[in-house]
Amino acid sequence: MSPQATPAPSRRPGRIQRRGLMLVLSSPSGAGKTTIARALLDGDRNLVMSVSATTRPPRPGEVPGRDYHFLGHAEFEAMIRDGQLLEHARVFDNMYGTPRQPVEEALVGGWDVLFDIDWQGTQQLRQNARADLVSIFILPPSVAELEQRLRSRAQDSDEVVRKRMAKAGDEMSHWPEYDYIVVNSDIGASVEAVQSILAAERLKRERQIGLADFVNDLRG
Amino acid sequence: MSPQATPAPSRRPGRIQRRGLMLVLSSPSGAGKTTIARALLDGDRNLVMSVSATTRPPRPGEVPGRDYHFLGHAEFEAMIRDGQLLEHARVFDNMYGTPRQPVEEALVGGWDVLFDIDWQGTQQLRQNARADLVSIFILPPSVAELEQRLRSRAQDSDEVVRKRMAKAGDEMSHWPEYDYIVVNSDIGASVEAVQSILAAERLKRERQIGLADFVNDLRG
Repeated sequence: MSPQATPAPSRRPGRIQRRGLMLVLSSPSGAGKTTIARALLDGDRNLVMSVSATTRPPRPGEVPGRDYHFLGHAEFEAMIRDGQLLEHARVFDNMYGTPRQPVEEALVGGWDVLFDIDWQGTQQLRQNARADLVSIFILPPSVAELEQRLRSRAQDSDEVVRKRMAKAGDEMSHWPEYDYIVVNSDIGASVEAVQSILAAERLKRERQIGLADFVNDLRG
Repeated sequence: MSPQATPAPSRRPGRIQRRGLMLVLSSPSGAGKTTIARALLDGDRNLVMSVSATTRPPRPGEVPGRDYHFLGHAEFEAMIRDGQLLEHARVFDNMYGTPRQPVEEALVGGWDVLFDIDWQGTQQLRQNARADLVSIFILPPSVAELEQRLRSRAQDSDEVVRKRMAKAGDEMSHWPEYDYIVVNSDIGASVEAVQSILAAERLKRERQIGLADFVNDLRG
């Protein structure tokens, strides 16, 4: 997260002060979520990506603080213990999680924060930050399309593809836990759909925390 | 309301079946609501305007069923008694109200219905149709702008303008009862804002009532 470069949106002159929101995108792999997330970030200067913490070592080319916050196991365990993670999970031998403080600072400053996490992470976020959370589930348009996207390499065996399809099916069973559902038939239309959701959620009364002052001025 | 001309949106092939929503626009006069409503209707074939019932006689040029449903007093009272009005109010000697049945038919067919009503009508709709209701309050950008818009004719006395400003102030005090707040600094941007809200609300999980079937098909 690097909102330090530009002035906080909530403090720009002429703007109603606002609290940011947490935008979660989840989907089975192969549904186009990563492409949508990238297009959103490129087109929106008020949206920043959440940077996860992890205990796994950096890979070549990864920049600490941009790609991940790289932590030792003891440090990570301490953050869990102190309630400093909004969600966390073990994947094989490594821990991954979302530090609370940078997210909270962004929200107070009026930035919106994008999360690319699965249904388990979303469930934890929902427990820890319900009022700030806006969750979107991306679905593929058809079984045929999903299979085509998951059959990424020609040499994949039918068995491998079947396993990926089964995993996608399990992930998709969690769609009823999300606020919005976008069927990704067309990537351009899906990006616009998610942009509309973000624009609308920013106009929700309870996120525009400076409205009472604004209307008081209007009413003289 | 004239959705009869085109096939019900919820039954078009390849579409997920959906339930329509009720979109309420309210604002003090002079805030630009009517212009926004007209632009919305022009640009959206899935949105129809709610036609009110009234006991006042038709004015020259008004078409029954398009501008208003013109009813006798006894007929209107019977509709109130039978719970056939979603909201109603007396204005001077005449009654105005929103018939329930055409709205319900539109929602079931997957159309969205636009309402241009004040905070009192909105309160009644909220009691009678909460889950289907999406409410937007339009605010003027500044006192100076509001006064300029209310000072429509050069010969208006300061006293007349003061009264209009006071009335607008009273109306504006109801902004906390609305889901979304749009400050109309620029008409084009405000139309886009309301279009985003409509697009987003259509993507809400609970309005896409055909999703369970759709995902079942996806999961095989």
